[in-house]
Amino acid sequence: MISRVLSADLPAHVGTRVTIAGWLHRRRELKAVSFLVIRDRSGLAQVVLPPGTCCELPEETVLQVEGLVTASPQAPGGAELTEPVITPLSGPATPPPFDLYRPTLTATLPTILDHAPTTLRHPLLRAGFAVANASVAGFRAALDGFGFTEVFTPKIVESATESGANVFRLDYFGRPAYLAQSPQFYKQAMVGVFERVYEVGPVFRAEPHDTARHLAEYTSLDAELGFITDHFDVMTVCRDAIAGMTESVSERARFEIKLLGAELPVVPEQIPHVHFAEAMELISTATGEDVTGEPDLAPAHERWLCEWSAREHGTELLFVHGYPLASKPFYTYPDLARPGYSYGFDLLFRGMEIVTGGQRLHRHEDYLAALAARGESPEPYAGYLQVFEHGMPPHGGFAIGLARWTARLTGAPNVRQVELFPRDVHRLSP
Amino acid sequence: MISRVLSADLPAHVGTRVTIAGWLHRRRELKAVSFLVIRDRSGLAQVVLPPGTCCELPEETVLQVEGLVTASPQAPGGAELTEPVITPLSGPATPPPFDLYRPTLTATLPTILDHAPTTLRHPLLRAGFAVANASVAGFRAALDGFGFTEVFTPKIVESATESGANVFRLDYFGRPAYLAQSPQFYKQAMVGVFERVYEVGPVFRAEPHDTARHLAEYTSLDAELGFITDHFDVMTVCRDAIAGMTESVSERARFEIKLLGAELPVVPEQIPHVHFAEAMELISTATGEDVTGEPDLAPAHERWLCEWSAREHGTELLFVHGYPLASKPFYTYPDLARPGYSYGFDLLFRGMEIVTGGQRLHRHEDYLAALAARGESPEPYAGYLQVFEHGMPPHGGFAIGLARWTARLTGAPNVRQVELFPRDVHRLSP
Repeated sequence: MISRVLSADLPAHVGTRVTIAGWLHRRRELKAVSFLVIRDRSGLAQVVLPPGTCCELPEETVLQVEGLVTASPQAPGGAELTEPVITPLSGPATPPPFDLYRPTLTATLPTILDHAPTTLRHPLLRAGFAVANASVAGFRAALDGFGFTEVFTPKIVESATESGANVFRLDYFGRPAYLAQSPQFYKQAMVGVFERVYEVGPVFRAEPHDTARHLAEYTSLDAELGFITDHFDVMTVCRDAIAGMTESVSERARFEIKLLGAELPVVPEQIPHVHFAEAMELISTATGEDVTGEPDLAPAHERWLCEWSAREHGTELLFVHGYPLASKPFYTYPDLARPGYSYGFDLLFRGMEIVTGGQRLHRHEDYLAALAARGESPEPYAGYLQVFEHGMPPHGGFAIGLARWTARLTGAPNVRQVELFPRDVHRLSP
Repeated sequence: MISRVLSADLPAHVGTRVTIAGWLHRRRELKAVSFLVIRDRSGLAQVVLPPGTCCELPEETVLQVEGLVTASPQAPGGAELTEPVITPLSGPATPPPFDLYRPTLTATLPTILDHAPTTLRHPLLRAGFAVANASVAGFRAALDGFGFTEVFTPKIVESATESGANVFRLDYFGRPAYLAQSPQFYKQAMVGVFERVYEVGPVFRAEPHDTARHLAEYTSLDAELGFITDHFDVMTVCRDAIAGMTESVSERARFEIKLLGAELPVVPEQIPHVHFAEAMELISTATGEDVTGEPDLAPAHERWLCEWSAREHGTELLFVHGYPLASKPFYTYPDLARPGYSYGFDLLFRGMEIVTGGQRLHRHEDYLAALAARGESPEPYAGYLQVFEHGMPPHGGFAIGLARWTARLTGAPNVRQVELFPRDVHRLSP
């Protein structure tokens, strides 16, 4: 390995000569003296050039700098390098079409995304992904703690398990196949093996809507567990996952949260919950618009409910449960005491649905009845239904959209800002 | 949550009445007494039926059993349930077409795979995945410890980065797109952002060969790091990842390794390495067959080399480095001191290549020259090459095939036995 000291560790080496390495983040030429700012994975380091010299290398050139670590109150971390010997490790870089050293990138979102491999180097963009990564680590740690087993299920599937509308089709050795819209079938099947499973992986939606919250491919944090009493058990585990994610971000991405000016939510011991029908009545009463007959929440309703939760319960998190059965997939468990409603739920956070989940059917005959009630043939679902013939416990689960969660957490108005290389109806590269 | 005690915890409850829940693994009707064996995620529990009674429910029915925990030296763990009250949680199961309670599944591999959601419940099959999961956890822990950042990169891509031969094509909103054969481009680009990155995710190969070691979709453990001196740095990190995986398996899947009768390798501080040219000479000398002109290792050569390594170095692990440049992808760093050879390497383990890696080119002009030398136009690689214009450090990485590793570790002769739901030229379901 190239022997070097990380920029964040410079203060521990004052008085000695060390080597650092990283990207030429910025050149600063003042009247009396010129500086280089070097960026590495730990942060920034300041290098003082000898009087009368300057550096002709363009920004983003990769450099190795050997020099004397000198205490300096003005330098990042309180130490800088003087008497430098500079060696380029890459050729001179072509300067990117934007200044990565400015506090924010002034380019438009499409330009930023077109140049993602380079724009992601900007500390503010990079910070969003550090938050996403810390969230994933927290999700895993929380579920590991509850005895969940991680699974890796196939993304190329024989048939679309849910609606066939927004599924990508591919050529699989000459026959048609599809990209999995979710690991739904597989995670349910794996409840029969490990009882409690989770998966962190890509899901694919041929989503024709070009909105700030839809992507054609995104990372989904999926969990499924058996031996539940009802969907409230699933909501409890979901709450613990969200709490674990928040805690992990506060530990592992504290600096990034500060840099982004973001605020972490306080996750209450019990996230408040409201039944879908009550939620619709609350909205109708408050807005004067009668929405009690609507089958689903509109984005404006989700925003209103989160504001209501903040006022009533002091939290930006709110479970809405008991969605109309017709608005949920066929495998959703019905509320037998309240015909027409289901044991499906969503978790809203800062105005947007970030989790969807519920209890699922677990008896084979209930699947047949549910499909018949929707006028669907069980035939295309034969592979899916097989496992329910061989004994499945009451179970349920949920899926957290990583980009939606991260966007809400960091205040990014568009999920594309917190997805490394977003895919949508118009964008397939880089 | 259904209030219950896990079967493994029964011995702690002797003398009290508790509830367990799980699958009816087996019914044993002896002359004097009948037993039920209940399987849950922690293991097996024995339930003694009252004299003269028996249970008509078929195997795999999900049951809740309330009973008195009674010490019994013959029972698993030394305790069993007596005076049971049995409540089915699923309907009566259709018995699967094989006996899950027998020590091994007697069905053929295709039958086992056709019924994967059920056959995976067999303790021996389940054990393979526990080993795979423990391996992934160890991979992450090892790389986290070295300051790596986990990334999630897109699986739908605009163009095939490597050979176009074995790539899956799909319809992306009316235009062609492909499934990523590896996160190669993205993990390299992310070295420019985080310096050290890893990804655990699916890769897709339209692999027409129907062999015991090829799959059309599998989980790849990918790592890439910057600021290396040469490929030996990458091999060092790779060794540490393999050591971390082995250690994690020995901790988290000890019981499963024992059940499978598998033996963990001892990972030496330094895995021995041999240059490709020397390896070919060794093989030629030993076998009498002149293979020194061959561009790559055949499976028989890989087996021979692992046996040689075991004899010479006392380990089943062996790095072969310096592969001919022509047999490695165009982004492979050339060995400037040994024309025609490269800084690419493979790691062999128990007779099979389980890792491939190397140092990559990092200067834009070197990419242009490498493509020109192969008679390829840089045009299709424009998106890939962009990042090298903007400053990239010397870097390299590797990819571990999870199924190959797990198969070698558990002694499974076919990678399909350690992939939850394998995909190959003939198989697309379940």
